[in-house]
Amino acid sequence: MLKVGVIGCGGMGRDHIDRLTNKIQGVEVVAVSDPVADNAKLAAAICGGKIYEDANALIEAQDVDAIFVVSPGFAHKEPLLKAIELGKRVFCEKPLATTAMDCLEIVNAEVKAGKHLIQTGFMRRYDKGYCQVKEALDSGMYGEPLMLHCTHRNPEVGENYTTPMAVHDTAIHEIDVLHWLTDDEYESVQVIMPRVTKYSHGKLNDPQIMLLRTKKGICIDVEVFVNCKFGYDIQCEVVCEDGSIKMAEPAYPDVRRDAKLSTTIDTDCFVRFKDAYDVEVQDWADKAKDGVITGPNAWDGYLAAVTADALVKAQETGQIEPVVTAVEKPDFYK
Amino acid sequence: MLKVGVIGCGGMGRDHIDRLTNKIQGVEVVAVSDPVADNAKLAAAICGGKIYEDANALIEAQDVDAIFVVSPGFAHKEPLLKAIELGKRVFCEKPLATTAMDCLEIVNAEVKAGKHLIQTGFMRRYDKGYCQVKEALDSGMYGEPLMLHCTHRNPEVGENYTTPMAVHDTAIHEIDVLHWLTDDEYESVQVIMPRVTKYSHGKLNDPQIMLLRTKKGICIDVEVFVNCKFGYDIQCEVVCEDGSIKMAEPAYPDVRRDAKLSTTIDTDCFVRFKDAYDVEVQDWADKAKDGVITGPNAWDGYLAAVTADALVKAQETGQIEPVVTAVEKPDFYK
Amino acid sequence: MLKVGVIGCGGMGRDHIDRLTNKIQGVEVVAVSDPVADNAKLAAAICGGKIYEDANALIEAQDVDAIFVVSPGFAHKEPLLKAIELGKRVFCEKPLATTAMDCLEIVNAEVKAGKHLIQTGFMRRYDKGYCQVKEALDSGMYGEPLMLHCTHRNPEVGENYTTPMAVHDTAIHEIDVLHWLTDDEYESVQVIMPRVTKYSHGKLNDPQIMLLRTKKGICIDVEVFVNCKFGYDIQCEVVCEDGSIKMAEPAYPDVRRDAKLSTTIDTDCFVRFKDAYDVEVQDWADKAKDGVITGPNAWDGYLAAVTADALVKAQETGQIEPVVTAVEKPDFYK
Amino acid sequence: MLKVGVIGCGGMGRDHIDRLTNKIQGVEVVAVSDPVADNAKLAAAICGGKIYEDANALIEAQDVDAIFVVSPGFAHKEPLLKAIELGKRVFCEKPLATTAMDCLEIVNAEVKAGKHLIQTGFMRRYDKGYCQVKEALDSGMYGEPLMLHCTHRNPEVGENYTTPMAVHDTAIHEIDVLHWLTDDEYESVQVIMPRVTKYSHGKLNDPQIMLLRTKKGICIDVEVFVNCKFGYDIQCEVVCEDGSIKMAEPAYPDVRRDAKLSTTIDTDCFVRFKDAYDVEVQDWADKAKDGVITGPNAWDGYLAAVTADALVKAQETGQIEPVVTAVEKPDFYK
Repeated sequence: MLKVGVIGCGGMGRDHIDRLTNKIQGVEVVAVSDPVADNAKLAAAICGGKIYEDANALIEAQDVDAIFVVSPGFAHKEPLLKAIELGKRVFCEKPLATTAMDCLEIVNAEVKAGKHLIQTGFMRRYDKGYCQVKEALDSGMYGEPLMLHCTHRNPEVGENYTTPMAVHDTAIHEIDVLHWLTDDEYESVQVIMPRVTKYSHGKLNDPQIMLLRTKKGICIDVEVFVNCKFGYDIQCEVVCEDGSIKMAEPAYPDVRRDAKLSTTIDTDCFVRFKDAYDVEVQDWADKAKDGVITGPNAWDGYLAAVTADALVKAQETGQIEPVVTAVEKPDFYK
Repeated sequence: MLKVGVIGCGGMGRDHIDRLTNKIQGVEVVAVSDPVADNAKLAAAICGGKIYEDANALIEAQDVDAIFVVSPGFAHKEPLLKAIELGKRVFCEKPLATTAMDCLEIVNAEVKAGKHLIQTGFMRRYDKGYCQVKEALDSGMYGEPLMLHCTHRNPEVGENYTTPMAVHDTAIHEIDVLHWLTDDEYESVQVIMPRVTKYSHGKLNDPQIMLLRTKKGICIDVEVFVNCKFGYDIQCEVVCEDGSIKMAEPAYPDVRRDAKLSTTIDTDCFVRFKDAYDVEVQDWADKAKDGVITGPNAWDGYLAAVTADALVKAQETGQIEPVVTAVEKPDFYK
Repeated sequence: MLKVGVIGCGGMGRDHIDRLTNKIQGVEVVAVSDPVADNAKLAAAICGGKIYEDANALIEAQDVDAIFVVSPGFAHKEPLLKAIELGKRVFCEKPLATTAMDCLEIVNAEVKAGKHLIQTGFMRRYDKGYCQVKEALDSGMYGEPLMLHCTHRNPEVGENYTTPMAVHDTAIHEIDVLHWLTDDEYESVQVIMPRVTKYSHGKLNDPQIMLLRTKKGICIDVEVFVNCKFGYDIQCEVVCEDGSIKMAEPAYPDVRRDAKLSTTIDTDCFVRFKDAYDVEVQDWADKAKDGVITGPNAWDGYLAAVTADALVKAQETGQIEPVVTAVEKPDFYK
Repeated sequence: MLKVGVIGCGGMGRDHIDRLTNKIQGVEVVAVSDPVADNAKLAAAICGGKIYEDANALIEAQDVDAIFVVSPGFAHKEPLLKAIELGKRVFCEKPLATTAMDCLEIVNAEVKAGKHLIQTGFMRRYDKGYCQVKEALDSGMYGEPLMLHCTHRNPEVGENYTTPMAVHDTAIHEIDVLHWLTDDEYESVQVIMPRVTKYSHGKLNDPQIMLLRTKKGICIDVEVFVNCKFGYDIQCEVVCEDGSIKMAEPAYPDVRRDAKLSTTIDTDCFVRFKDAYDVEVQDWADKAKDGVITGPNAWDGYLAAVTADALVKAQETGQIEPVVTAVEKPDFYK
């Protein structure tokens, strides 16, 4: 039984605590910590874990084997470095950290420690739809992938959602999952700004089309449309030399009614990726005994940060912007 | 140019006159006749044809090469027999006649005349959807057909529509098209009466499930549901030994809106089969020069009547009823 | 932690033991039993449970809270009666027993014991597809269900599979799930025998169409086609007064290749219903603490047996056969 | 009866002659001309028209009311100017002319003549699929269009097909139909060059992604992939403020076979757009009596040339290139 301490007990944190407690095999939440005391109390009520006022104390606790970091992104670096120092395994909700520099610091610490400890919480790699596409690609039946056409559509966002958040909060998932899907890395990016929907506001260009080119020359377009109104609609088509593979739509009944043949589109990302979260965390727990990270690692977290920075720059310049990492990918991650 | 006289100038008749005049190649409507003088006038205004008060005179007219019979079913026999007598080609809207005995009389007259003159107006054989299924079946790729699952759904019917009309006015189309599709004839029928929809009335069992068995043992089920509310929905799946073939749904855009991915279902049979009517009549006109009938012939019209009678009996008895023709299929029709 | 003893350690038994051990929360397999010693050893190796030569001893064991019966159907009755006697909760793979009379004996014993103990292993009620259809029906948006069109298609069966097995081994799943779906009971049944596929053999009419009428008058047709070659293809459409609901096809990518736009059809029932088995067993375990059975109970097992008997009779007579239970549904099960 | 003379009797020309002769109402081909005598003879054999060695003589012929220009693009300008001079109506297969300057000369001539005479042969505006999308857009139900995602995929091309031909011979159809669909004009273009498929050759970047921005800010991406191997696959999705509309796939049966549920993808553009050609030419003929052009006019032909030039430049520069017409759109065309 892997004994886990959870740092960050807001909505997402408690959701993970519930999952770890009631769905995941071989794991037990023994410790929780949150600056907001009420959050910690609510969390402890779910799992029965001990409340730590000090996150560092939680990380250091003898009976804590592994750490779940679900605090806000800006607060990730410190506990991650601490866990690495103590050689404790970590599941860190995305993002790894809020700047590429911080991410690199974490990467460097992990490399220096010489142990694979950190998994970054990009759950899409565990979604059945993406996995089916990946399996088809890996079968070799379709030749090399050449282009990807994707959508990341969301019913609506609040007034505080601004243009750069279309990268950091939304396209960030495509950034991770698509380079995994294609087994490739990004070379350059561009952002196209179409006419703005009437449902947007002054500080948000919505929709946007993000273009990413990989090192092998695969060209990816991602429509990011966060006020599309009609649903949470994630699409991904991979066009290969010998055929095209489009991710399945979520399965709902076909209904005939009112002169329409229709099926349901999800409206909530947590409904759409509900199973993916469960599979992700179970996989992390299962790999604990082998001491390996097969999910997104710290380097993937760093790559996401670097790519996101390039996209935000491209939003501003309208130009094609290179995606440049400060260092070569360490052998440690190959 | 084939010169056509049209008997029956109600809505359906004028629709055919418009088609013959404005869409069909190689045909001209030169004569029209209807007991209701206004109908005849409206018809003449479309095509410029001469008005005949007497239908017989129209059939006999020197400049009339061929006859279109679009009068009510009970009035079909007399002009058909007259046209056969004069050796004039006929397109007769379904039904051929309202009783099996009358149909047989027409068949016998045609056989005696020794010329293929009569096409019965079952337009579904000309529908692209059915033709694609037929082509697949005839390819031999799927082995023998074993079962057919069909629906004939209609949004709603009036209060005057009664239980037997589900056969005579509705399933009659399946009766013809399905034995053509399977190149087979019916052996027996049964009708199942499910729970009645709240949208029906005292004299109408709606829906009904009609079961037909062919001589080769193909088993067909047709859901006839005339108050289904949601659309005019014609489906046909043929299950074969090596695969199943389901007729295409009519093509409409895929729309994403209001948390639904939907496409349109037709609500009007004349929209659904609009192209089929055009192809049917053009084909009839094209075959005129060769003096052949490749569409539904008089024997098909008789078979439909015999099968419909068996189904109406089966509605009443709840039993499996045989489909028996009074004579063997004449060599003339083989 | 619910401590479970498993009786029957063949393939299906070991599959359940693996599930109980590695996937299900709150359960532990502490005891196994099988007449074949090797099966028991293999089973013990998965879960670490104690091997009992005598199934009765396993049921009586102090540390066994609940029983899983996965032995062949003919061997179910004895352990079920024993478990009822001891007041131990049971999960019994379908069928409850091999004759209606035996099922009724089990029902009577449970009623007499006055405790809800037995869940019958009809996993389809836990399939996401059926649950979505059930949810739509229960929403009231579609009015009353009038007809169900279903298929149970299987790629192929062995030479030992005979006509009655199309009921007992195949349609048995529809028998259970469809009366649950419609919240209704069966009144009568009929079986139609179409032309036989070239892939069948002398002792098997394949395909068959099974017709079931419920007490409310819902008419169900189930195409049972066990040598359909192309896949394991389970379909279910419910036609209601205000619309039709068709169960989702399993989700696979849409592939464009070789002039075809295609998606995958499952070929294995354990792939198709993999998740359903997991959900079924988790649900059974979760309900243990409340002492209730919300899944298929013993009465459902009895009903399935009675309905299957009527269908087998209908296979022979070609007639509509009534479905008659020997007793009224006990209040205990309402 | 509109009497038509056809200039250009190659394969496409004879196809149009067959259409005009055997499918289209109200038209008669009375004259044909082709530099290759055999082509003219084959053409005359179809329609019975008189052969003219000199195309000018054909245009001038008293009994020729209207001209069909189906010669190679470089030979269009002269007959078009001649026909304008004589005030004769013209259907000119695309392109209007091979340079923007020549197109403008034709436009200027038509404006000066003050009569709407020239229709350019972009048949997609007459395709049922595009018309359904247009109708949905024009309904106002979806708000303003913001983005279009399109594909123009072709199974394979010969060795002589080079990078710029992806614009002139392939994307030219999207150029016309998409600005009509959106009722907008192009402002700038860009071309992205993904990794090249193994099925291409040294002088062809295949696939390409063409990006077009309209004056209203609609952003269009067109995947042009001419060696996609799997089919002739034309897609068009219009993403609007209140929903997304995707053009219907061509309707073919749904087939279940070999563990696949599949439908057919066309492989031939003339099959895909067969009906569109017929509707296009019938519409042109029908409008002749009113002296109006409701299809693509000469200005549309000019716009297509200007846009194509910008795309070819963008292929070379990799930059965003403006689409600039030499003159404002004349009031004559508004």
